[in-house]
Amino acid sequence: MAELGPIVDLRQSATALRVQRGVMRLLRETYDMACYAEVTLRSGRRADVLGVGPKGEIWIVEIKSSLIDFQVDRKWHEYREFSDRFFFAKPPELDAGIFPESEGLIVADGHDGAILRDSPDTPMAPARRKALMLKLARLGADRVHVLMDPGPK
Amino acid sequence: MAELGPIVDLRQSATALRVQRGVMRLLRETYDMACYAEVTLRSGRRADVLGVGPKGEIWIVEIKSSLIDFQVDRKWHEYREFSDRFFFAKPPELDAGIFPESEGLIVADGHDGAILRDSPDTPMAPARRKALMLKLARLGADRVHVLMDPGPK
Repeated sequence: MAELGPIVDLRQSATALRVQRGVMRLLRETYDMACYAEVTLRSGRRADVLGVGPKGEIWIVEIKSSLIDFQVDRKWHEYREFSDRFFFAKPPELDAGIFPESEGLIVADGHDGAILRDSPDTPMAPARRKALMLKLARLGADRVHVLMDPGPK
Repeated sequence: MAELGPIVDLRQSATALRVQRGVMRLLRETYDMACYAEVTLRSGRRADVLGVGPKGEIWIVEIKSSLIDFQVDRKWHEYREFSDRFFFAKPPELDAGIFPESEGLIVADGHDGAILRDSPDTPMAPARRKALMLKLARLGADRVHVLMDPGPK
């Protein structure tokens, strides 16, 4: 199966995983966004969390577990093309002031999360949304299938 | 999370589960169709296997494990509206002659499968395909999410 991607990436820090869990709970329970972790986009970038809303809205959340983690990332702008709303997410102990005010911001731990600052709504191009929805429909199927059936390989 | 549906339905017979496994392997490996098991459609019917192709093609496979299983189903025609191709699938020991020649037919066991008769291509309405793709993108996310995180409930 093509491009399954790991559900849990061993390179992720424990902090990032806690934030991921809280972000996904928040998006699912409060905003009715069905969430994928670790979605590789056509650009090659991998979205930490990608949510799909009931009308096909796409939110991308980029998790930053530390100041250095944020500082070394010079390409987060690319996520805007692949989402309607874009958020950074941080653990409670990280200073909110390091993040650009132009973007959404979420605080989360392993139990829950909250939106600290909403994201501007910048709708995706329709063709890109359509292509992404197909990609997600196939990605979700493959991620479950490989769990249902380790397969003959 | 809404409408997760069981990945394995305990009402399914062991035979049906074996056929399901072989059908999903066949579709994924030979036809590049990413497969979901047990997808509830808007009509309320539940597709045994639903495959999503690289261009958004939708195939539905209805598993019949016995003659009586086929005979009691008077509503399989409804699947045509929700798919581009529709197949029955049967275990090797079940007579192929009981199935209508107008529909596709797959034979499968727990290891592998084969298409015995291709299905006519009857393209879905675009709006229905779009709605189904969104539904699948969210269903796949939710099925994986609930495995990643049993949640606070």
